Amino acid sequence: MTLPDSGRLAQQLQFVTELDRLKLVLRQTLLLDASRRENSAEHSWHLALMALVLYEYAPAGTDLMRVLKMLLLHDVIEIEAGDTFCYDAQANLDKAAREQAAAERTFGLLPVDLNLELRNLWDEFEAGMTTEARFANALDRLQPLLHNFHTQGGTWRTHNITKAQVLTRMAPIQYGAPSLWPFVLGLIDEAYDAGFIAASA
Amino acid sequence: MTLPDSGRLAQQLQFVTELDRLKLVLRQTLLLDASRRENSAEHSWHLALMALVLYEYAPAGTDLMRVLKMLLLHDVIEIEAGDTFCYDAQANLDKAAREQAAAERTFGLLPVDLNLELRNLWDEFEAGMTTEARFANALDRLQPLLHNFHTQGGTWRTHNITKAQVLTRMAPIQYGAPSLWPFVLGLIDEAYDAGFIAASA
Repeated sequence: MTLPDSGRLAQQLQFVTELDRLKLVLRQTLLLDASRRENSAEHSWHLALMALVLYEYAPAGTDLMRVLKMLLLHDVIEIEAGDTFCYDAQANLDKAAREQAAAERTFGLLPVDLNLELRNLWDEFEAGMTTEARFANALDRLQPLLHNFHTQGGTWRTHNITKAQVLTRMAPIQYGAPSLWPFVLGLIDEAYDAGFIAASA
Repeated sequence: MTLPDSGRLAQQLQFVTELDRLKLVLRQTLLLDASRRENSAEHSWHLALMALVLYEYAPAGTDLMRVLKMLLLHDVIEIEAGDTFCYDAQANLDKAAREQAAAERTFGLLPVDLNLELRNLWDEFEAGMTTEARFANALDRLQPLLHNFHTQGGTWRTHNITKAQVLTRMAPIQYGAPSLWPFVLGLIDEAYDAGFIAASA
């Protein structure tokens, strides 16, 4: 496709050009002005900047660099696998298998050392067991919460999501950024009172 | 706008929600499938991931964390100031003044310590004097080069840009990522031979 045709730099640039396709993957979340749906590339940027600005709410000793790397690449597999709406139970059945295959392919474009590094970071984010992965996951939940709140319910209203569903979805914030949890609970209450979230069935 | 109404977290979240507007700022550059123009938020994400993948081409000792931070926030001032097309001589006359005022306002939404940290990073990127700022600037030139090349000239053709103009525009790569410069010169030659870049006037 471009100079050079082979070798390490060619592999790196093939990955770099492949990344462009993530800008075409649309999420359910609306932009705050509700003019259109958000794409996964700009979403990832938003989360990375949130990590910089909200880092003090991460547990002490959290490695910000690893958080940033995970947030930047956490959705790259959607280039192949697409975005799976979090409240779509059917699509979530085979989500893990689709995303694993996508990770093989997309990170596999890279030279083997970079493939290994980025794949390990993505696996770490998905597993959600380290402090860094938990904080990254917390931000990945917080941002759509803010967007749904500021768009009068956004995808909650479109899909008739209940307060119990929202609380379950937001639970990772309690573990990944515990000091933000009281704020999150307050915001969910406020959203419920405003009619942005459905009463339980 | 949201809980809490005041205090540190409120300021941080006001900045976070303000960031969403960068997704609406369109650059001249086309996506690689030429379906639409790129916005400055997804562009910033692309550059940050490029920094991860191309870090080995930075001069030895380059602080990757500072590079990432600069790339994530380098266009935030466009929320207020808009994107200024690099080959538009008229608009570039007052670009610096417009962007300084925008930086005051946008970073000024943050608590004073974060305002200072992010503003210093943005100033560093703009000044382009440190190794980190130079590498970040090099990536900010390289990405549109790749996009113009892969879209048969893209904005070069739309605006009848000459090879001399492209070489001047790309010069920061020579200083910020010297080991990529031979590749860049080769790509510009190839683009010129393919008719993607105009002959000099």
